[in-house]
Amino acid sequence: MAQIAGRVVVYGGKGALGSKCVSFFKNKNWWVGSIDLAENTDADLNIVLGREENTADQESSVLSSISSVLGNDKLDAVICVAGGWAGGNAKKDLIKNSDMMWKQSVWSSLISASLAANHLKDGGLLTLTGAKAALEATPGMIGYGMAKAAIHSLTKSLAGKDSGMPVDSVAVAILPITLDTPMNRKWMPKADFTTWTSLDYISELFYNWTIGKNRPQSGSLLQLVTKNSETNLIPA
Amino acid sequence: MAQIAGRVVVYGGKGALGSKCVSFFKNKNWWVGSIDLAENTDADLNIVLGREENTADQESSVLSSISSVLGNDKLDAVICVAGGWAGGNAKKDLIKNSDMMWKQSVWSSLISASLAANHLKDGGLLTLTGAKAALEATPGMIGYGMAKAAIHSLTKSLAGKDSGMPVDSVAVAILPITLDTPMNRKWMPKADFTTWTSLDYISELFYNWTIGKNRPQSGSLLQLVTKNSETNLIPA
Repeated sequence: MAQIAGRVVVYGGKGALGSKCVSFFKNKNWWVGSIDLAENTDADLNIVLGREENTADQESSVLSSISSVLGNDKLDAVICVAGGWAGGNAKKDLIKNSDMMWKQSVWSSLISASLAANHLKDGGLLTLTGAKAALEATPGMIGYGMAKAAIHSLTKSLAGKDSGMPVDSVAVAILPITLDTPMNRKWMPKADFTTWTSLDYISELFYNWTIGKNRPQSGSLLQLVTKNSETNLIPA
Repeated sequence: MAQIAGRVVVYGGKGALGSKCVSFFKNKNWWVGSIDLAENTDADLNIVLGREENTADQESSVLSSISSVLGNDKLDAVICVAGGWAGGNAKKDLIKNSDMMWKQSVWSSLISASLAANHLKDGGLLTLTGAKAALEATPGMIGYGMAKAAIHSLTKSLAGKDSGMPVDSVAVAILPITLDTPMNRKWMPKADFTTWTSLDYISELFYNWTIGKNRPQSGSLLQLVTKNSETNLIPA
């Protein structure tokens, strides 16, 4: 077996962005674990979660799978790109959609944080996925805004003193506006795609941060602002 | 039956602060509903929730009880002071405590928002309870910070256009530092109580806002900063 360049886990590794991240790291000869509701056959390890499990069960399942595979080895990075979107205001689906957003986006972020606290190497990287929209009021997608605000809070807290994260590790969140995914193209066919952020850009960004290139300060919330198909990282 | 001065629902009406709010309004001859895990016998209506219910069930139970009692009448205010505290970082009880904080603080806030959207009068008041600490990183109480950050987001969103709230209604959050409750005195007996915020002050504040006195702008996050036993409201 060829020597591997490093070890990364992608939470949401079967999604549009997650799949790109898995392939990007695989092409660089990394060992890649994928956590998702379905298997990504490109990954070296798949942890397939059941939709019905509660957070604590999901966490145990993730931690025990990773422990048994890694042994004493550590991860270089944990990349969490799981999440979802739902609209809804105080009169429409408030509880249902807030609950769904919490489960899809916050649970995955919390389990990623727990995974990082327990299995990331000193100086390792954890990336979470927030949203630029959640820096302000989101009256038409209240539950989404709450979940993403909680992820921003988590990111800042993980960067704080005695957060439980490994020494010199870095926790950052990307705050996308719109990602250029097949689903977004399908549902918003008339949008201006040159303002959408490409998945290749983000995969390469994560790779660079993992190997220490242009790595942002821990706790950073980085808005992905794309114009004319060019993306800039703007700290919130 | 004497004519009532108005109608208010206190979520968390059996807690230290909630009980004070219930008595304060009762003394002013208001009709008061209490929602909590136990009955407050001073209240005109008690909605006692089961600990094991999920959010959707809690919401149905609250909305149907309130509907059947109010008929076509509307509420003047919904005051949510339910919530809890838990420490814990990424290595210690992250999932368990984040889940508990979400249920104790966010569920109650969401149901209060839903109650307000459905039963508050035009120009009515909704108050939620955030935390000053959650404006910054909270590495030693990560789940608490996330839940309170979500409540801050909810407050701002409810104040936004098309949030589903009644016309001219106001949604605000108080952001306490430490409340002067019997439990806090018990657990922190050596603290400087002159920096803690009195429950009487807050009850009167809510009453004043309800009747339109010094009512803050909708979406305000108001830090309760107490020095020498005097409290100032500092917008975040």
